[in-house]
Amino acid sequence: MTPDDFRSAGHELIEWIADYMERVEDLPVLSTVAPGEIRGQLPVDPPEAPEPFAAILADLESIILPGLTHWQSPNFFAYVPANASPPSILGELASAGLGVQGMLWATSPACTELETHMLDWMLAATGLPLRFRSDGSGGGVIQDSASSSTLCALLAARDRSRGVDLHGLRAYTSEHGHSSLAKAMAIAGLAPHQLRTIATDAEHALRTGALIEAIATDRADGCTPFFVMATVGTTSSTAIDPVAEIGAALGADIWLHVDAAYAGVAAVCPELRFVNAGLDRADSYVCNPHKWLLTNFDCSLLYVADAAPLVESLGILPEYLRNPATDTGAVIDYRDWQIPLGRRFRALKLWFVIRSYGLEGLRAHIRRHVALAHELAGWVAEHPDFELAAPTPLSLVCFRHRGGDAVNQAIMDTCNRSGALYLTHTRLDDHLVLRMAVGAVGTERRHVEAAWRAITVAASTE
Amino acid sequence: MTPDDFRSAGHELIEWIADYMERVEDLPVLSTVAPGEIRGQLPVDPPEAPEPFAAILADLESIILPGLTHWQSPNFFAYVPANASPPSILGELASAGLGVQGMLWATSPACTELETHMLDWMLAATGLPLRFRSDGSGGGVIQDSASSSTLCALLAARDRSRGVDLHGLRAYTSEHGHSSLAKAMAIAGLAPHQLRTIATDAEHALRTGALIEAIATDRADGCTPFFVMATVGTTSSTAIDPVAEIGAALGADIWLHVDAAYAGVAAVCPELRFVNAGLDRADSYVCNPHKWLLTNFDCSLLYVADAAPLVESLGILPEYLRNPATDTGAVIDYRDWQIPLGRRFRALKLWFVIRSYGLEGLRAHIRRHVALAHELAGWVAEHPDFELAAPTPLSLVCFRHRGGDAVNQAIMDTCNRSGALYLTHTRLDDHLVLRMAVGAVGTERRHVEAAWRAITVAASTE
Repeated sequence: MTPDDFRSAGHELIEWIADYMERVEDLPVLSTVAPGEIRGQLPVDPPEAPEPFAAILADLESIILPGLTHWQSPNFFAYVPANASPPSILGELASAGLGVQGMLWATSPACTELETHMLDWMLAATGLPLRFRSDGSGGGVIQDSASSSTLCALLAARDRSRGVDLHGLRAYTSEHGHSSLAKAMAIAGLAPHQLRTIATDAEHALRTGALIEAIATDRADGCTPFFVMATVGTTSSTAIDPVAEIGAALGADIWLHVDAAYAGVAAVCPELRFVNAGLDRADSYVCNPHKWLLTNFDCSLLYVADAAPLVESLGILPEYLRNPATDTGAVIDYRDWQIPLGRRFRALKLWFVIRSYGLEGLRAHIRRHVALAHELAGWVAEHPDFELAAPTPLSLVCFRHRGGDAVNQAIMDTCNRSGALYLTHTRLDDHLVLRMAVGAVGTERRHVEAAWRAITVAASTE
Repeated sequence: MTPDDFRSAGHELIEWIADYMERVEDLPVLSTVAPGEIRGQLPVDPPEAPEPFAAILADLESIILPGLTHWQSPNFFAYVPANASPPSILGELASAGLGVQGMLWATSPACTELETHMLDWMLAATGLPLRFRSDGSGGGVIQDSASSSTLCALLAARDRSRGVDLHGLRAYTSEHGHSSLAKAMAIAGLAPHQLRTIATDAEHALRTGALIEAIATDRADGCTPFFVMATVGTTSSTAIDPVAEIGAALGADIWLHVDAAYAGVAAVCPELRFVNAGLDRADSYVCNPHKWLLTNFDCSLLYVADAAPLVESLGILPEYLRNPATDTGAVIDYRDWQIPLGRRFRALKLWFVIRSYGLEGLRAHIRRHVALAHELAGWVAEHPDFELAAPTPLSLVCFRHRGGDAVNQAIMDTCNRSGALYLTHTRLDDHLVLRMAVGAVGTERRHVEAAWRAITVAASTE
């Protein structure tokens, strides 16, 4: 494919994606294919001869598209959003087109420096504590996911406790803390019983008293509490742990990590900065622009108050990566801040997004979803057959039909089978609870209204 | 940005990238910016109001471009290649444009099924053993990097040895094994002394006798050998460990992982299938299309002969991810085959590449680089002042000036400062050795000739 072939194929693909943006609303949100149905349409063997781009694009349309769950549909209310705005798609394209490696400062200085700068921009945009800014001992880095960010924080904390027997270490999170912490513990060589899950209050937030008690008990047993993960916006219900209270209760020897993967970016709105409460004591903090800030996956921001333990854990310098810039110590080599060695130029998409929307555009985006979610929560509260199952601090509404788990399951299945919307569930207080996350780039009032109508209709036929 | 705005900005960016492909040859390969120079040109604060795309594109050109090391330059001979072909860039664009999440089969069936299919295509294309094919107990998955692939293999092996005290585990690789294994060990909670580095022979390949001896010694000391990483194409010199011999020497209780990150894809050429020797005993195998098979970073293929230990190590199922397809057990949920939870639709770019080039195009690509490297090796061998420092089985040429380390360092610095080419170094047999990896998409004979001329000129002025 010559540059001219790339031009013509590229223009075709840009048109196809723009068309997709325009029609995604009308496609069934959840794919209805059966296991194996997509593979069954693909040739068993790879082609010997080159194929024209038109053939690939035709198959993208006819084979792949029906097998997709349309995360960018305005009728997508499942999980948490993964919103991909047009400028972020272009940022990803620019990154792929340049094809640089950002493992070291030297392997592409702009890749490292734009990243550091975007982390400082996001700090300013969301009002994070200055301890996370790059001009001090801390700083930030873009990871692929909150799972990886949390893993890195856990490893730094684990290794900071060096000298202590691994078996004696104890970590803590609420019973609604994200499963990635349990996975990170396993990766780090820590056993399941070394992670204590702490009880939550009526609003599904961690009970600080229970945490203090668990830590005291473990200390009395000769164990070493080393890591607490507080959550701002749990995956189940966007519950917000009392981070300030938790931080005040911890000694400096316990690493406080705050998982605000979904909720953190809400802080671009000053009126939603309650999500930042207590961060001035956090050792590390993660929020994902790839969830709710218009940036396509992957773009997870990990901030640390002190980069030294992170680099101490993850740094490695073989001969073939030595270079003058690294030797001076005057630059950041981000490979020492993450699990893999290689890294893409992910800062470009964040730069494209922040500039294309401006802070005012980012705020308007968040505010629209929060307002729609609050409106939906109002409709639920008013309906005689439904009830809210959790508070709605941000843009996720948790609710259930009063008829019990089977009815709720049936409502969800009917809605999802219809293709008109996609929602998922969780369990709270031992009840099946329906979740509607208002977060797609294109979601407007009419989509939320239609979804609520579909849910109530499905309920009335149960 | 509306779909129409996306159209016009997208077309502009496609043209800009095509122009970049055409002029990258003339840009200085290695950026000459000083630390802080890129950041110094960026506004301290993020913008309040939206900016037009034209402003972003102008800054991409004037601020970012001078801060890049041009990995796609035909004059890039450093590290190992990271080649990004036009179709792979379009595949990345399609993936970003669709914005789907592939963590579960259910979250986008086509994302999972195309990935499984591409892994089977690559198995057929490179003649890998059938034990890695998806219709048996094994299969493959796309990871972001060989570092992550190796980490996953190590974790599966570690956890398969459950019941054994972690401290007693011992892993092995040659002294030229990639540093990512040492990093993976640290992540997995294993100490540096638990990784044994095995001596190599005159061609820098692992000495099987030394490995057998180390394993026997460790067993005699009551330790548990559990993991061997053999390398096919070391980073330093593309040395090829005797995988078949190593495999024959190991009991089934030791996990054999083969790191062919760079070299593995050479097997698309039947005459280069010596890189596959011994893989029928390997428990896991990694090769990276993002290095030398025309696919932009990231696209690392991890194959396992048995997926069960991998899923056992990395699987986790919180309530909010439960779904009917997962419950049937009839589908693959790739989140259980990797470190993070979320995942991009990376199979698209591999699909675009394989179809755009066809197997014959992929073979021609590899053959061209191998032929050029062999020609370069011939020039080095004939030159009175230079000597080859290692064999050239593939497309990396290791050589040195007979004048000693300082002269070689000076040659490298002069060449890299010139902007005309970029090469890196390693240490072999305690000598500084220059490395030229012929691997960029656009590298032709004239680029290799010009580079060699520049090197000899630099040498003559020392």
